[in-house]
Amino acid sequence: MDFAPSPRAADLTARVAGFMASEITPIEPAYRRDLAEARRTGDPWTPLPVLAALKQKARDEGLWNLFLPQEHAGEYAERFGTDGGEGLTNVDYAPLAEQMGRSAIAPLVFNCNAPDTGNMEVLLRYGSDEQRREWLEPLLDGRIRSAFTMTEPEVASSDATNMEATCVVDGDQIVVNGRKWWSTGVGNTECRILVFMGVTDPDADRHRRHSMVLVPMDTPGVKVERLLDTMGLYDEPLGHGEVSFTDVRVPISNVISGPGEGFAIAQGRLGPGRIHHCMRLVGLAELALELACRRGLERTAFGKPLVDLGGNRERIAEARIAIDQARLLVLHAAWKLDHGGPTNALSEVSAIKVAVPAMAQRVIDMSLQLHGGGGMSDDFPLAAALVNARSLRLADGPDEVHRGTVARLELARYS
Amino acid sequence: MDFAPSPRAADLTARVAGFMASEITPIEPAYRRDLAEARRTGDPWTPLPVLAALKQKARDEGLWNLFLPQEHAGEYAERFGTDGGEGLTNVDYAPLAEQMGRSAIAPLVFNCNAPDTGNMEVLLRYGSDEQRREWLEPLLDGRIRSAFTMTEPEVASSDATNMEATCVVDGDQIVVNGRKWWSTGVGNTECRILVFMGVTDPDADRHRRHSMVLVPMDTPGVKVERLLDTMGLYDEPLGHGEVSFTDVRVPISNVISGPGEGFAIAQGRLGPGRIHHCMRLVGLAELALELACRRGLERTAFGKPLVDLGGNRERIAEARIAIDQARLLVLHAAWKLDHGGPTNALSEVSAIKVAVPAMAQRVIDMSLQLHGGGGMSDDFPLAAALVNARSLRLADGPDEVHRGTVARLELARYS
Amino acid sequence: MDFAPSPRAADLTARVAGFMASEITPIEPAYRRDLAEARRTGDPWTPLPVLAALKQKARDEGLWNLFLPQEHAGEYAERFGTDGGEGLTNVDYAPLAEQMGRSAIAPLVFNCNAPDTGNMEVLLRYGSDEQRREWLEPLLDGRIRSAFTMTEPEVASSDATNMEATCVVDGDQIVVNGRKWWSTGVGNTECRILVFMGVTDPDADRHRRHSMVLVPMDTPGVKVERLLDTMGLYDEPLGHGEVSFTDVRVPISNVISGPGEGFAIAQGRLGPGRIHHCMRLVGLAELALELACRRGLERTAFGKPLVDLGGNRERIAEARIAIDQARLLVLHAAWKLDHGGPTNALSEVSAIKVAVPAMAQRVIDMSLQLHGGGGMSDDFPLAAALVNARSLRLADGPDEVHRGTVARLELARYS
Amino acid sequence: MDFAPSPRAADLTARVAGFMASEITPIEPAYRRDLAEARRTGDPWTPLPVLAALKQKARDEGLWNLFLPQEHAGEYAERFGTDGGEGLTNVDYAPLAEQMGRSAIAPLVFNCNAPDTGNMEVLLRYGSDEQRREWLEPLLDGRIRSAFTMTEPEVASSDATNMEATCVVDGDQIVVNGRKWWSTGVGNTECRILVFMGVTDPDADRHRRHSMVLVPMDTPGVKVERLLDTMGLYDEPLGHGEVSFTDVRVPISNVISGPGEGFAIAQGRLGPGRIHHCMRLVGLAELALELACRRGLERTAFGKPLVDLGGNRERIAEARIAIDQARLLVLHAAWKLDHGGPTNALSEVSAIKVAVPAMAQRVIDMSLQLHGGGGMSDDFPLAAALVNARSLRLADGPDEVHRGTVARLELARYS
Repeated sequence: MDFAPSPRAADLTARVAGFMASEITPIEPAYRRDLAEARRTGDPWTPLPVLAALKQKARDEGLWNLFLPQEHAGEYAERFGTDGGEGLTNVDYAPLAEQMGRSAIAPLVFNCNAPDTGNMEVLLRYGSDEQRREWLEPLLDGRIRSAFTMTEPEVASSDATNMEATCVVDGDQIVVNGRKWWSTGVGNTECRILVFMGVTDPDADRHRRHSMVLVPMDTPGVKVERLLDTMGLYDEPLGHGEVSFTDVRVPISNVISGPGEGFAIAQGRLGPGRIHHCMRLVGLAELALELACRRGLERTAFGKPLVDLGGNRERIAEARIAIDQARLLVLHAAWKLDHGGPTNALSEVSAIKVAVPAMAQRVIDMSLQLHGGGGMSDDFPLAAALVNARSLRLADGPDEVHRGTVARLELARYS
Repeated sequence: MDFAPSPRAADLTARVAGFMASEITPIEPAYRRDLAEARRTGDPWTPLPVLAALKQKARDEGLWNLFLPQEHAGEYAERFGTDGGEGLTNVDYAPLAEQMGRSAIAPLVFNCNAPDTGNMEVLLRYGSDEQRREWLEPLLDGRIRSAFTMTEPEVASSDATNMEATCVVDGDQIVVNGRKWWSTGVGNTECRILVFMGVTDPDADRHRRHSMVLVPMDTPGVKVERLLDTMGLYDEPLGHGEVSFTDVRVPISNVISGPGEGFAIAQGRLGPGRIHHCMRLVGLAELALELACRRGLERTAFGKPLVDLGGNRERIAEARIAIDQARLLVLHAAWKLDHGGPTNALSEVSAIKVAVPAMAQRVIDMSLQLHGGGGMSDDFPLAAALVNARSLRLADGPDEVHRGTVARLELARYS
Repeated sequence: MDFAPSPRAADLTARVAGFMASEITPIEPAYRRDLAEARRTGDPWTPLPVLAALKQKARDEGLWNLFLPQEHAGEYAERFGTDGGEGLTNVDYAPLAEQMGRSAIAPLVFNCNAPDTGNMEVLLRYGSDEQRREWLEPLLDGRIRSAFTMTEPEVASSDATNMEATCVVDGDQIVVNGRKWWSTGVGNTECRILVFMGVTDPDADRHRRHSMVLVPMDTPGVKVERLLDTMGLYDEPLGHGEVSFTDVRVPISNVISGPGEGFAIAQGRLGPGRIHHCMRLVGLAELALELACRRGLERTAFGKPLVDLGGNRERIAEARIAIDQARLLVLHAAWKLDHGGPTNALSEVSAIKVAVPAMAQRVIDMSLQLHGGGGMSDDFPLAAALVNARSLRLADGPDEVHRGTVARLELARYS
Repeated sequence: MDFAPSPRAADLTARVAGFMASEITPIEPAYRRDLAEARRTGDPWTPLPVLAALKQKARDEGLWNLFLPQEHAGEYAERFGTDGGEGLTNVDYAPLAEQMGRSAIAPLVFNCNAPDTGNMEVLLRYGSDEQRREWLEPLLDGRIRSAFTMTEPEVASSDATNMEATCVVDGDQIVVNGRKWWSTGVGNTECRILVFMGVTDPDADRHRRHSMVLVPMDTPGVKVERLLDTMGLYDEPLGHGEVSFTDVRVPISNVISGPGEGFAIAQGRLGPGRIHHCMRLVGLAELALELACRRGLERTAFGKPLVDLGGNRERIAEARIAIDQARLLVLHAAWKLDHGGPTNALSEVSAIKVAVPAMAQRVIDMSLQLHGGGGMSDDFPLAAALVNARSLRLADGPDEVHRGTVARLELARYS
C-alpha cells in the first residue's frame, strides 16, 4: 500500500504545478472576464484563443495527455504524449489531477479533461485500429473534442436497465434512436464525435443488451436540442446538452468492440474517470481552503481577523482534516485499481464517489461563507466550484447508488 | 403564544394560495422560458409584461401590499392596500409570506418583495410627509421600485462599524460618496430610488454615526458599475448591483429621520424583513418537499418507486420534521415581534436567520438530489431555490453574526 | 394553534419550578451520593427515604398526579390529584413536564413518572371499575408502582407483529407465557403490578390479535430474570428488567377492555407518553445548556473564559436554537393531540419522537464536552442525561420506525 | 508514503488476530459476566485470573510488548519483548493496535495497554539506568502496573499552563503537592508507580516550568481519593482515579530527565500514544460495523432483514467509508511520525485525535441503534465501546484544542 508517486510522477507534478502557477493562474481573472463577455456578446462555445496557446505551450513542455494509462498507452504515449513517453499508473496520475483540479481550464490545457479522457481510454482499450486512427489520434492531438451520451431525460438513469435509447443492427449499419441529456462537451464547436450507448438486444442477458457506438456529430438525425445549465452555469465552452437521435445510421464498424459489449466497456470506463474527478475535487477543495485562510487572515471585523472570530478556526481545521482523509481515500482506490483493476476496486471507487464530492461541497461552502457576499459571485472561483462539487454528487452515478454498492459488498462478507 | 392566524388572515392566505394556483403556478414555466429568452436576446431587466398584468389582477382582488404592518399602515392600507384596509400583524402575515415563497415571482405580483417592502416600512415609520408623498406612494402603487445600499465590497460588512461610505452634511445638502454592492433591485429598469446608508459623523457615538439618505437613481454621480451574479444567476429583473457614489448631492431633506439616525432605522428595518425572508424560505422548502414526494413516487429504478429505495423515505421524514420546526420557530419570532417589538425579539429573529436558510438549503438539496441531473437545471425550480437559500445564509447578516447574537443574549442570563 | 398555557397551568408550572428549586435541586448531590452508596452496600432498589418525604410534601402542596388528562381524569383528579381537582390538557401539562425533566427524581416525586403514568392512563380510559379500584387507586395514591411488559429479547420489537409472547384464554382464566425485557420499574421493591401485552389469537386481524393483561408481580410463574443496564446505568430504584412468564394464570377479568383489544389500547397509550418523554428531554436539554453557559463563563483557559474560545459561542447558539425548535414542535404535537386525539397527531407524535431525543443527545453531548473529563463522571448530571437521551432514540419505537410513519403520512398526500 | 506493513509486521498482525480469535474473543462473554459478578461481590480491582493466564500465553507466543518503538527498544525488545527481538515502527504497529482495539482486554493481554505503554516509552527514552531497572523492567515484565497523573479537577487542563500541582526541589528530595484526576490505572491492585507531572519553577520559561516525577504508590502522602466513572462504567480493573498528593517526598533521582524537563517529555510521550488510541478505535469501529452487518442480516422486521429497511444500507456504507478514511489518516500520521518524529507530525497527530474518536462514536452509535434496546446493555460490547469512543474526545486533549493546533499550523502557511 504505497501511495508515494514515482520520481517521474513527482517531477511531472512539480512541473504541472509550476506551469499552473506561471501560465494559468495569472490569466484566470482575464479568462473569466473574457468568457463573461463572450456570453453577453454571442459565442462562448468556441474556445477562447488563449486556450489554444496554452495547450501548445503545455504540449511543448511535455505536459500533454498525462492521463494516458500505463497499461494501455502503448505507442500513443510516445507519439502524442507525455514527457518520457510512457503512461502513468493511477497512483502516479492522482497528484497531477489534484493540481489540475485547482483550475476550471487546466484539464483542457493539458488535454486531460472529461469526457475526452474517458472516451480516449475506451478507444485505447476497446477501439479497432480504424476507430483509433480516425478518432483517437485527433483527440490525442487535441484537434477535436468528443462527448459521451448515456443519461436519458425520461427515466431514472441511475438504473442502467431503464435505458430506452436503441441502436439496432440493420445489415451493415446500426440505427440509433433516442434522447440523451447531460452529454458534456456537445456545446463545444470543436466537438466532432459522440460515444453513444443504447440498447441493441433487449432480450439478451442484462449485461449483454447494450452497445457503444461512435456517432459523428454531423451524421443526419443527430440534433443538439438545447444546452442545459447547472444552477445557472453553462460550463462553456464544453456545455451539457440534450441530444436527440432520430434514425441515425452509421456503419456497423462504428460499434466499439462489437454489439452487446456496451455494458462491459462502461464498467471499465468508469474506474479511472472517477479517480480523476475525485482527485480534481481534492485540488479544488485545497484551493477553497487556501482562499479561506488568506481571506480570513486579511479581512477584519470586530477588531480581529476573521479567522479569530467564532468557529472559523475550527472550521479551517475540519476542512484540513476532511481534505486529507479524502485524498488518502482516493489514493487508496487508485492503488487498488493499479493492483487488480476495476473489479478489485468496486467498493473503493464507489466510496470515493460518495465521500469526495460531499467533502468538497462542504469545504467549498465553508470557504464561500467566509468570503461573504463576494463568495456567491463570479469574483471568486468558489461559487462555480460549489456547483461543480454539487454536480458530481449526481454525475457518474448519484451518491445513493454508490452507497448501495459499498453496502452490498460490505454485507457480502457476512452472507 | 397563539400562532393561529386571525380569520381575516386565514381568508387572505386561502385567497393568495388560490391566486397562486390559478394565476401564477401555471404560467411559471412560460415565464422561465421567456426570461431565458430575454437573457439571450438582450433585455431581461425590464419586467416581462405578464408581471404587470398579474400585479393588476392581484390588486383588483385586494391581494396587494399585504405586508403592510398593522401598527404603521395607517391610511395607506386603505388607500393602496389590502382588502379590508388594515395592516397585518407579523403572525398574520407569516402564512401569506409562506405561500408567496413558493414562487420566485409571487412576491413581486403582490407588491410584497424585498427590498421594496423594507424600504416602504422605513418610509412609513420614519419618513417625512414629503418623503412619503414623493416615494412611498408610488412604491405602494407599484409604479416604481427601490433599492437599499448598505454592504460594501472592500470591508467585512458583517461588522457595521467597518462601513466606509460617507454622507456628509454641507449646508442644506448632503454629499454622498462611496461604493456599495449587493444592492438588490438596481438592475430593474423601474428602479427610481436608492436608500443609502453611510457615515455622517465618525466621531459620534457608535449608534449615532450613520445616516440613511434617499438618493434618486438619476442623481449625477450615481453609477451602477455592474450587476453581480449569485452562482451564475442574476435574479432578473431585480439584479444585485455594485453602485458607486461620487460626490452625489441631494437636499438635506432627503435624510430619513435626520442625520445620525441611520443605525436606529436599520435596526427597526430588519426584524419584519427577516420574518418575511424566512417564511418565504419555509414555503420554498415545502415546495421542494412536495416535488421530492411527487418525483419519488413517479420515477422508478431497480423495480421500485424512488421513495422506496435506500434512505429516501427517511430523508423525506427528516425534511417534514425540519420544515415544521422551522415554521414554528418563525411564527414564534413573529409573535415576539408582535408582542414587544424588535428589542423583544433580538435573539428570536437572529435564531430564525440561522436556522431557516440552513434548513431550506438542506431540504432543497435533498429534493434536487432526488431529481437527478434534471434537478441541477432550469427545468425545475430547485437549483434556483438552492441558490436563494444559500444566499440567505449571507444576506442580512451571515449565520456567524446571528449565532453571535443568540449566544450573547443566552450568556447574558448567567453573567 | 395556541400554545399558551392556561392561567392555572402557568400557576402550576411556577409552583413546580419553585418546588424543584427549593426542595429537589438542593438535595440532588446528596441523593446521588446516597444512591451510589446504596449500590455499593447492597440495596439500591428500595426507594431512598427522602423520596417518600418529598412525595408527601409535593402532595401536600397539590403538586400530585399532574399528568392526569383532562378528558379522562374524572373523579380521580379530585380524589387523588392535582390542585384544583381537574386534569390538564397536553398543552397545559407540557411545561410542567419540561420542569420535571430537569431532574431524574422529580417525576417520581410528583407521581408523574413513566411507566406508571402510562399505565394509569390505560386504566383510566380502558379499565373496569374493579380494575381501577384494585390497581389504579393505589397507583394514584403512590402506594404501589407498576411496569409495562411489551418488548421481547428474541425478536425485533419495532415490528409489533413479531411479538411471540402469548396470553391464551382458558375458561375463565388467561394463561400468560413468554419473555419480555426493558420492562422499566420491575426492579423497584414497590412494583406490584405488570401490564402484559401478548398474542391471544394469531389468526385474527392484525389489529385484533393482542390482549393487555394485568399480572400481579407475585403471581406464580412470573420471574424477573435480571436487571439490564443502559451503558452501565441501572436507573435505580426503577430498573429495566428481563421478565419470564411461565404458565402464568390470572382471571380473565384481568384482561383490560377484553381479549383482542391490546393493539387499540397500545395506540392510545403512546401519544401522551411521548409528549411527556419529549418535554422532559426539552427540560433536560435546557439544564445542559444552562450548565454549559455557567461552566463556560467560570472556567478559563488560554487567558479567556471557555465560552470565548473557538466555536463554543456558536455551539451555545445552536443549542438554544435547537431546543426552542424542539419545544415548539412538542407543543404543536400536544396541541394536535388536544384537538383531535391520537389519530389526528400520528405524524406529529412520531416527529417529536425523532427530533427531540436526537436534539437532546446533541445538546447534552456539547455541554458534556465543555465540562471536560468531569462531564463524563457522576459529578455532573450530564453523563446520565446523555444515556437517558440516547435510550429514548430506541425506547417507545426506534427513530427509524417513527421516520417511516412520518414519511408514510407525508407521501399519502400525493398518492 | 508507504503504508504497507513490513513482512514481520504482517506476520505479527496475523498472529495477533489469530490469538484473539482463538483465545480472547471466545472468553469475553464469560469475562464480562465474571467482572460483573466481581463488581457485585466486592473486588473488581484485582485482575481476574484469566488475564494472567492469557498474558503468559501471549508472551509464550512472542506476542508481548509489541508496542516497543523501533528507535528506542534497544536491548529491551530482546529481553522482554516481541518475537524477533526488535521494536516496530509506528506504521508497523498500527495494524496490531487495530486488532487489539476490538477487545477491551486484549491490550492488557499483550502488555500493550495505556497508560503503561506511554509510561514505558517515557522511561525508555528519558529514564536513567536506575529508573529503568527499578520501574521499566517490571513493567515490561508485566509484574507491576503504572499510572500517569496530569489532569487536575479544579482547572481547565486543556491549557497546560493552568496546572496547579507542584513538585519543588528541596535539597536531594522533591516535594510533591496537589490533586490530580482521571489517572487511569490507579484502581488496579497491581499499580505500583505513578508518573506525576507538576510545576517546579513557575517563573521559568513556559516550556521549562514542569517536571515529571516517579512517585511510588506507597509513598506517604499519596491517596487515591476515589475512583471516577465514565457514564457509569469504572473500567475495572484499571479505574480512573482522583489522587491527592500531600507533602509527598521522593529522592530527586526520581525526577525523569531532571527538573524542568516535564513539558518536553510530555510532548514526546503523546505522539505514539495517540496513534495507538486511534488505531484501537479503528478496530473497535470495525467490530461495531461487523456486528451491525451480522445483526442486520439476521433480524427481520416487516418481513425483511433489518439491512433492507429504510436507510440502513446507506448507513452501513457510510460507516465503511468513514472507517477507511480514518484508518488511512492514522496510517499517514504514523508514517509522518516514523519519518521525522513528533515535530514533523504535530498537525497530523492532532488531526487523527479529532477525526477518529468522532468517527468511532458515530459508527458505534449507528451499530448500537441497529441492535435495538439490547445494544444499550452489557449483552453487547457496543455501549461500552460508545463510552470509550466518547471519552477519547476528551482524553489526551479535547477535540477543540486539537482543532486549534491543526488550524494554527494551517494558517501559518499563509502568515
